[in-house]
Amino acid sequence: MTTISVGMLGCGTVGTGVLTLLNRATNQIAESIKVHFNVKKIAVSHPDKKRNLHWDEDVQFTGEIENVTTDPSIQIVIEVMGTVDQAYHAVCQAINHGKSVITANKELIALKGPQLTKLARQNHVDLYYEASVGGGIPILRVLSDSLITDQITGLTGIVNGTSNYVLSAMKDERSSYADSLKRAQKLGYAEANPINDLSGFDSAYKLAILSQLAFGHTINLKQLERTGIDKITLDELSGAAHWGLTIKPAIVARKKEHTLYTLVAPVAVTKQHPLANVSGVENSVLVTSTALGTTSYTGAGAGSEPTANSIMSDLLTITHHILTEQCGSSYNAPSTHISEYSLLKLPLEYFIALGEPAKKEPKFSNEASQYIEDTFKTGKAVFCITSVLDKNEKTNLEKSLSFMFQNVHFYPILKEN
Amino acid sequence: MTTISVGMLGCGTVGTGVLTLLNRATNQIAESIKVHFNVKKIAVSHPDKKRNLHWDEDVQFTGEIENVTTDPSIQIVIEVMGTVDQAYHAVCQAINHGKSVITANKELIALKGPQLTKLARQNHVDLYYEASVGGGIPILRVLSDSLITDQITGLTGIVNGTSNYVLSAMKDERSSYADSLKRAQKLGYAEANPINDLSGFDSAYKLAILSQLAFGHTINLKQLERTGIDKITLDELSGAAHWGLTIKPAIVARKKEHTLYTLVAPVAVTKQHPLANVSGVENSVLVTSTALGTTSYTGAGAGSEPTANSIMSDLLTITHHILTEQCGSSYNAPSTHISEYSLLKLPLEYFIALGEPAKKEPKFSNEASQYIEDTFKTGKAVFCITSVLDKNEKTNLEKSLSFMFQNVHFYPILKEN
Ligand SMILES: NC(=O)c1ccc[n+]([C@@H]2O[C@H](COP(=O)([O-])OP(=O)(O)OC[C@H]3O[C@@H](n4cnc5c(N)ncnc54)[C@H](OP(=O)(O)O)[C@@H]3O)[C@@H](O)[C@H]2O)c1
Ligand SMILES: NC(=O)c1ccc[n+]([C@@H]2O[C@H](COP(=O)([O-])OP(=O)(O)OC[C@H]3O[C@@H](n4cnc5c(N)ncnc54)[C@H](OP(=O)(O)O)[C@@H]3O)[C@@H](O)[C@H]2O)c1
Repeated sequence: MTTISVGMLGCGTVGTGVLTLLNRATNQIAESIKVHFNVKKIAVSHPDKKRNLHWDEDVQFTGEIENVTTDPSIQIVIEVMGTVDQAYHAVCQAINHGKSVITANKELIALKGPQLTKLARQNHVDLYYEASVGGGIPILRVLSDSLITDQITGLTGIVNGTSNYVLSAMKDERSSYADSLKRAQKLGYAEANPINDLSGFDSAYKLAILSQLAFGHTINLKQLERTGIDKITLDELSGAAHWGLTIKPAIVARKKEHTLYTLVAPVAVTKQHPLANVSGVENSVLVTSTALGTTSYTGAGAGSEPTANSIMSDLLTITHHILTEQCGSSYNAPSTHISEYSLLKLPLEYFIALGEPAKKEPKFSNEASQYIEDTFKTGKAVFCITSVLDKNEKTNLEKSLSFMFQNVHFYPILKEN
Repeated sequence: MTTISVGMLGCGTVGTGVLTLLNRATNQIAESIKVHFNVKKIAVSHPDKKRNLHWDEDVQFTGEIENVTTDPSIQIVIEVMGTVDQAYHAVCQAINHGKSVITANKELIALKGPQLTKLARQNHVDLYYEASVGGGIPILRVLSDSLITDQITGLTGIVNGTSNYVLSAMKDERSSYADSLKRAQKLGYAEANPINDLSGFDSAYKLAILSQLAFGHTINLKQLERTGIDKITLDELSGAAHWGLTIKPAIVARKKEHTLYTLVAPVAVTKQHPLANVSGVENSVLVTSTALGTTSYTGAGAGSEPTANSIMSDLLTITHHILTEQCGSSYNAPSTHISEYSLLKLPLEYFIALGEPAKKEPKFSNEASQYIEDTFKTGKAVFCITSVLDKNEKTNLEKSLSFMFQNVHFYPILKEN
């Protein structure tokens, strides 16, 4: 039996899940690969807090991250504490001390992924982060193992469970945005401060991570076109439903030649679209590639055990590398030079929700009318479906509608990947 | 640059796809892992046939399988010729000559998988067969890598594209079984002799392969409860639609304690079921496990390039193993002792399609009525939905209905995984 010593940073939702799963799989791992994982130290904010752990062995809690990241006997560090700067410092320290690292921290990988990957390679250690996107869905592994020689041309996904839950609850139960959010918080699906989730930051981080692996491209997060779900109303969902459309919080990337078109925003999808039935906290990623066509990967995008399961598969991969002395050798998407633009630069159809008209009886100008395919009114609200608009046409239409209506929301209609 | 010599058995739909993808990825593979694949020899039935290949390099066609499987310079053999006995003999020979093997042959792996895996291990070579289930969907890799420490409790899938195409065409275009099949053949979705697909044999092989990896259990194919789709009528699809049900060609495995319940049959699913929208030649596998809950994997289940893409990912995995000298070391599900029964032993709800009544005006006996929840008649046909029935109740109902109707078809209704 080989013993592998593990250190952990953080022991909250995900960290306790890791201990639960490790505990449950101890015998199986011992039998199949003759390895015992010794969780030696866990760094937390409150080392003296009483914790309810499914863990049978001794483990030392510490308030000092360095106790874990510099301990010469620890071979693998699992970072599940969150934050960017502190986590970055801790992960660098662990790597510089020769430890392989697993992290669930999407913000860290989105912002510092390429640097950390390079540092890990230089130190001949592994850096894995399957848990950072899609919780339990093995999407990063699919991109890096199964699609390695294929050319990916499109990614569309729902990768923020909180936003998807809120919109699903609004649609299915006709409860307001505020009530749906409150319920999400009560059920533990949304954090006390849900701004990162609802404004699309969390989705943007995940799109950045997926793009690194799928396109070898590091997204410019500052310039990324990003819209949250916090302005969506019940009326808008009903308006969309009139045409069989559902509004979903999406990430989108389309590669055409040497350009990547990206978007983080609520979009409208038809009933037949594979994302239409992904509801509640579920996540799903559609990948389109030259050889494979479109494949989709769907499951729990967060939660203690699903997320911890991704960490377990990273842990076993690294262990295999330690046993065969090949840490730091995993393939990485070669970085490529592609330009990046908003998806809204491409010709698209739109679902438009218009708030109350500025004038009593709205009448579309001739110019506006030529772009509008169909109109639907309920109460004071007006909804439209447009023909395919290029960027200029969309800008023109937006301008002429904004003279007549107080709120003008454009939702791109997604048809294919 | 390292050169890896490859031999191929067969150069039909899948084989030509492998050459196309290899050709397309040559530069990328050379750059990223500094490997060049030299496809030296291909064994085919008709070595002199003119072939339209996307392949720039010299390659020797041969009519003798042994020329490939015993060539000392060949390191990896790709078996894409089909058959069981011949392929078994060829794969054994290749393994015994120290070659790692990739195969797309589901029948071979379903019937001889455990023996071949053992032989490969003894010879320190790899045996991979991602392409054998779900075409391009990386489902085997997910089971063996990402779910390795999780306990899988349920598998439900649509893994035969031909059957799914035929049923989808019947439902969506109201064309008869015979017409739908003819169209599938015309489009290349069904073979000239489609019996293996339509009678459920192909699905059964795939269930067997999935069970080996998911449960470490080798299914007894002779005792497996298996029903084809060839008896399904347009009327039955309409009857099902009355309750929002869709009939889908499914494979099912449920593990409860130490028992595995299995089924290969058309089943009825509700609109919300993740398989309801999997249509045409698409395949999908749902996996339920303790930590992860239910995840689903959907995509092209067959076709030249999708299937070849799975072979490419196996090829790269084996290459990595050759370079790091660890062939034959991959984990394998430990085989476990579990009993196997038909899923129909479990309490289930059913959708029942009844052909013309034996008597003019059918009246259900009291005994039958107690199990029937709802009835729907159209023309001469009668359809029912039952309450949850255990095995005995189902047998009783079947018996009493068969006195009154000429055709009695029971479709289990699947609600969860
Ligand atoms: N929750 C999910 O479903 C999920 C899914 C995917 C990814 N993630 C990511 O996983 C990471 C952890 O998430 P979580 O939900 O488990 O968070 P959490 O429940 O808030 O737990 C955070 C843990 O980190 C510890 N901690 C925080 N700051 C620390 C510091 N400066 N030094 C030492 N310990 C510190 C806390 O200690 P105390 O216990 O003493 O307070 C706590 O144990 C985050 O990056 C998150 O984005 C979470
Ligand atoms: N087609 C798919 O979408 C798909 C998907 C998943 C798995 N598969 C599996 O992949 C395998 C190949 O399928 P395929 O569709 O590519 O078949 P195919 O188009 O019929 O091609 C078979 C190839 O094998 C050669 N061959 C047949 N018997 C041979 C023998 N005894 N000795 C030497 N060569 C022989 C044929 O030679 P000639 O060319 O000279 O006739 C032909 O090149 C099968 O096991 C199938 O189940 C196929």
